[in-house]
Amino acid sequence: MIVAMSKDATAEEIQKVVAKIGEQGLRPIEMPGGDRVAIGVASAIPAELRQPLSEILEIMPGVDHVAQVSRAYKLASREFHPADTVVDIHGAKIGGNRVAIIAGPCAIESREQMLEAAEKVKEAGAALLRGGAFKPRTSPYAFQGLGEEGLRILRETSDLTGLPGVTEVMDHHDMPLVCRYADVIQIGARNMQNYPLLTAAGNADRPVLLKRGPSATIDEWLLAAEYILCQGNERVILCERGVHPLDRAYTRYTLDVSAVPVVKSISHLPIIVDPSHASGNWKYVAALCRAAIAAGADGLLVEVHPDPLSAQCDSQQQLKPVNFAAMVTEVRGLANALGRSL
Amino acid sequence: MIVAMSKDATAEEIQKVVAKIGEQGLRPIEMPGGDRVAIGVASAIPAELRQPLSEILEIMPGVDHVAQVSRAYKLASREFHPADTVVDIHGAKIGGNRVAIIAGPCAIESREQMLEAAEKVKEAGAALLRGGAFKPRTSPYAFQGLGEEGLRILRETSDLTGLPGVTEVMDHHDMPLVCRYADVIQIGARNMQNYPLLTAAGNADRPVLLKRGPSATIDEWLLAAEYILCQGNERVILCERGVHPLDRAYTRYTLDVSAVPVVKSISHLPIIVDPSHASGNWKYVAALCRAAIAAGADGLLVEVHPDPLSAQCDSQQQLKPVNFAAMVTEVRGLANALGRSL
Amino acid sequence: MIVAMSKDATAEEIQKVVAKIGEQGLRPIEMPGGDRVAIGVASAIPAELRQPLSEILEIMPGVDHVAQVSRAYKLASREFHPADTVVDIHGAKIGGNRVAIIAGPCAIESREQMLEAAEKVKEAGAALLRGGAFKPRTSPYAFQGLGEEGLRILRETSDLTGLPGVTEVMDHHDMPLVCRYADVIQIGARNMQNYPLLTAAGNADRPVLLKRGPSATIDEWLLAAEYILCQGNERVILCERGVHPLDRAYTRYTLDVSAVPVVKSISHLPIIVDPSHASGNWKYVAALCRAAIAAGADGLLVEVHPDPLSAQCDSQQQLKPVNFAAMVTEVRGLANALGRSL
Amino acid sequence: MIVAMSKDATAEEIQKVVAKIGEQGLRPIEMPGGDRVAIGVASAIPAELRQPLSEILEIMPGVDHVAQVSRAYKLASREFHPADTVVDIHGAKIGGNRVAIIAGPCAIESREQMLEAAEKVKEAGAALLRGGAFKPRTSPYAFQGLGEEGLRILRETSDLTGLPGVTEVMDHHDMPLVCRYADVIQIGARNMQNYPLLTAAGNADRPVLLKRGPSATIDEWLLAAEYILCQGNERVILCERGVHPLDRAYTRYTLDVSAVPVVKSISHLPIIVDPSHASGNWKYVAALCRAAIAAGADGLLVEVHPDPLSAQCDSQQQLKPVNFAAMVTEVRGLANALGRSL
Repeated sequence: MIVAMSKDATAEEIQKVVAKIGEQGLRPIEMPGGDRVAIGVASAIPAELRQPLSEILEIMPGVDHVAQVSRAYKLASREFHPADTVVDIHGAKIGGNRVAIIAGPCAIESREQMLEAAEKVKEAGAALLRGGAFKPRTSPYAFQGLGEEGLRILRETSDLTGLPGVTEVMDHHDMPLVCRYADVIQIGARNMQNYPLLTAAGNADRPVLLKRGPSATIDEWLLAAEYILCQGNERVILCERGVHPLDRAYTRYTLDVSAVPVVKSISHLPIIVDPSHASGNWKYVAALCRAAIAAGADGLLVEVHPDPLSAQCDSQQQLKPVNFAAMVTEVRGLANALGRSL
Repeated sequence: MIVAMSKDATAEEIQKVVAKIGEQGLRPIEMPGGDRVAIGVASAIPAELRQPLSEILEIMPGVDHVAQVSRAYKLASREFHPADTVVDIHGAKIGGNRVAIIAGPCAIESREQMLEAAEKVKEAGAALLRGGAFKPRTSPYAFQGLGEEGLRILRETSDLTGLPGVTEVMDHHDMPLVCRYADVIQIGARNMQNYPLLTAAGNADRPVLLKRGPSATIDEWLLAAEYILCQGNERVILCERGVHPLDRAYTRYTLDVSAVPVVKSISHLPIIVDPSHASGNWKYVAALCRAAIAAGADGLLVEVHPDPLSAQCDSQQQLKPVNFAAMVTEVRGLANALGRSL
Repeated sequence: MIVAMSKDATAEEIQKVVAKIGEQGLRPIEMPGGDRVAIGVASAIPAELRQPLSEILEIMPGVDHVAQVSRAYKLASREFHPADTVVDIHGAKIGGNRVAIIAGPCAIESREQMLEAAEKVKEAGAALLRGGAFKPRTSPYAFQGLGEEGLRILRETSDLTGLPGVTEVMDHHDMPLVCRYADVIQIGARNMQNYPLLTAAGNADRPVLLKRGPSATIDEWLLAAEYILCQGNERVILCERGVHPLDRAYTRYTLDVSAVPVVKSISHLPIIVDPSHASGNWKYVAALCRAAIAAGADGLLVEVHPDPLSAQCDSQQQLKPVNFAAMVTEVRGLANALGRSL
Repeated sequence: MIVAMSKDATAEEIQKVVAKIGEQGLRPIEMPGGDRVAIGVASAIPAELRQPLSEILEIMPGVDHVAQVSRAYKLASREFHPADTVVDIHGAKIGGNRVAIIAGPCAIESREQMLEAAEKVKEAGAALLRGGAFKPRTSPYAFQGLGEEGLRILRETSDLTGLPGVTEVMDHHDMPLVCRYADVIQIGARNMQNYPLLTAAGNADRPVLLKRGPSATIDEWLLAAEYILCQGNERVILCERGVHPLDRAYTRYTLDVSAVPVVKSISHLPIIVDPSHASGNWKYVAALCRAAIAAGADGLLVEVHPDPLSAQCDSQQQLKPVNFAAMVTEVRGLANALGRSL
């Protein structure tokens, strides 16, 4: 932490900042500069002290601003955990050399729909199955999902096809229920900072797929992961799904493909990409799948529906099985060209 | 709803779109244009059909894009409810000619702190008291609030000073608990699309202060309000608290002051402004309070702490009581100049 | 400047950074911390060295990142020029206690239109006249302005009414031409980083109204001002006109009203607000004018047209004279309540 | 164009809108809906009428809002020009099956530097050479380029290596000078809406590489291309270089990789990607190059410097030749896997 004093800060103001840092058991270092004095903190700052100390220093007289030198997250950081984390879900691995594809419909609508979807995506190369039983919808008038009946269908379909099932939980009180049926718990973008839910996920005996909120910075996202990790659940999979768009005319969000190499460089957690929600348009999904894998993503989360025209939600962004299969073939080619497999 | 066909759509593709609209019991109108045909829907579209129909039409062959003509929200719309809603909280009114100020510390830290804060803000002109017992924090290592002990202090302070208490609820299972102690339920920005929480708030016997999410469009915000309204709770107060910033160097968020006149023109719900979170810096709070009231806001939500330097969170954005009082005096002058009172 | 080393930087890597700083004639200070070493620069860094040094240090082995402690602008900074700059344009002052209103049509269309506009805005209280002769238009098919004929009309109208004229220059080779006719040179938002134009404005014998680019940070904006100031032209007026919008559904841009108190605190230059372009909708202009002045802006730039329905551009955002007059009355009331005049 | 009337618009207000459309020689169609009436325009709207008509209708009494059905650009649209445009620069083609790489230093610094850079990038597989002689810099104190001396070095290097040269022009009066030396004219992101410059480029006898402005929507970008195309210059190459970032902590901009498939679907113009400026960090450049080509980009624009540590600008984002060569090898593998060549 560096405290930049104002150009006209008095010697007394500087001494008060030095003293305040010392009071916390930290070691201050004065750095006389050209225009101004800066004061550095030359000790490890305990995590719980970091934010309040910064805020307090910021409002002391004579202080211009405070700059952070260290990252706010620890457990999610590669500095403290150099090796890649690989999450193993009954043999389906996310995080290693193999590209993992999670596919399935936006919402679970019926036993028949799920089974057809699961068989088609498995045949094409998917390693896990997705399907929503609890659907977060922008409008209260939209279809909200089948609830527990949907979870039951997911479990049955997983068992029949051997694809582990991924589904979203929106309410931490549903966590035990969802864990009974699902193999991976998904935290949706709208809930990235729903702290009771993150804490419950941290205590659940299931891997957690954590989507990035559409206006979350990468640090905020890794701090959300930290909420899960610090409860003892180390099986966190990050999922980039598009950030707030500059231009809503053609895509629903903007896929932040740079997040893939950035996260890979600063964190050990696996990162996958959801191009269905990022684009909101099936026409662009295959191109974004290719881009994600080329950028180094560990996998994909793709919406596939046996018949998008009859879907109860997100018709526009769900791939037909035939288009999904064509995309997987392309992605496999890219993965092989990069020395990976699928 | 208008379906714009591609320039090279065939007659058959056009007829299929016309037929699909007809199947829903809606009336299609063909509009031959210069470059392309457009097909309008000349009937009221039921709320639950709106989104899925739009998505399905969008992926039909020959369709270029679908444009919405009507708004997605109904109960929050001024078109269906022309008169301003005024929320009355034990005599403190939000939404009328009088400017309402809600003030108090970020977090409830102790009985003494709350009582001092409440007395100071009441003396200066606040009509309601705020204070957080459950604190949503970006970092898991930060202070998370006193919980029920904090709620008890809030209730006691409200009773002693006569200022109705406003506090955030983060978990819908805490709703009965929070309603036992608080006069107004706050839904925080991070939870604007936490649908179980919105639904619970819609069923609570308390007015609800609904903060705008930092990347929420105005329509998404009004749809979040619709979640509460459609459960039968008509006492919703909107709160603009800053949107995702273009520039984080000087303020934490960007106060979207235009949202005030926009919301006033399209919705009947009262709207207040929270300049403390919008700026994240106490130095700019007074200027933003003045701007909000000048733009027509119904009130303010302001963080005030007896001693910001000792605060357990948000030290940087909490006003000292003396600065709060000076701000209220200015705002009162502005309100009077505009024919309002405070 | 602070160089944060990686947690696992070697002693040799640290010494190379120390040496590199020393080579530039600057004084490095090592700060051993908890997790990592940081190295500060304890000398004034010459302006031309700042950016390249930062970039070079950033890529040296063992370096995690480089943080800036000082601002990049000097001449625009209040630290080096504590007193407010007041720009005097033939007696109309921008930057002092009096609120200055610049008003007039988007584009100069005819002698009659300008004269009527000028008389109406003068009567209502405007101190300067605006009108575009060279119009930057998003579409090449849109009306591009009257050019020199428009400038002549502006000059004549200014002379007849006594209102100094403000007009945009888009091409630095037009600078002498525009200076012949106009009293204030405007640099538009799209040209905020058009460096030949900024340099020409810095050499012109006219005050310069510099609009903020819609995606410019405040530092980038002040650096654009620095381009003008460093040529010796000290008469720069900043103009906030809306930043890239989160939501285009209701307004064209998002007025960043916080920029007013932020700029006031870090710079001595006067700042005015253009709510016409910020909102793109005349209905919201009056509310934003009030907000801007309440926030402390030195003035307003408002589009007014005698008959918006017949205007050749921006019909939607131009006020009718009667609405302009009503707005000025309200703003005068606010200004008076804040101890200012208009 | 569709005019949505307010729910409570009167019959007279509706008739006035109908009449106003008729006055322009266009055919109005009334569409009675559930909540409101909409009025469509069933004729091709002349390009120059489009914007003003929309603005005028928007402010007529009883009008709620106006929605556009057609795109604003014509010449850049694939609807009017279905076949892909391929730009041929002395045999180097941009837009066809072969991936084209443009590489070279940020700024031309010396004859030796350019020659070494050109030889290295040619050897690795680049088809064109880049280098800046006129540098747009955010700070007036930064290195501004060698000017004509730089152009001369570019020409000489191009001739020696056979790589056509690409360089930026910032001032339309320099257009003849730059065309004398360069094979491709670059319009930088900051100048995307510099209309005198776009018009001059439209009249130049050189292909034009048009960078997207960091806050430009895709429609605004294609309208900027339209400025060039409508002057008769059909050789326009679009270049995505990152949009305004949600998060500046790790990258300078956010690469909008979705723009690649979107532009491919709506326009016939070739599109390349500049990952150097998008990321601002050499570490992420290779990953973004791979993503761009996987998404379908026609080529890359990459900064390469023989010795980034000694570079006069953008040290941080320039690749070393060895890293460039490794990236090209990877991209070639990807291109081959997708049935393309490099």
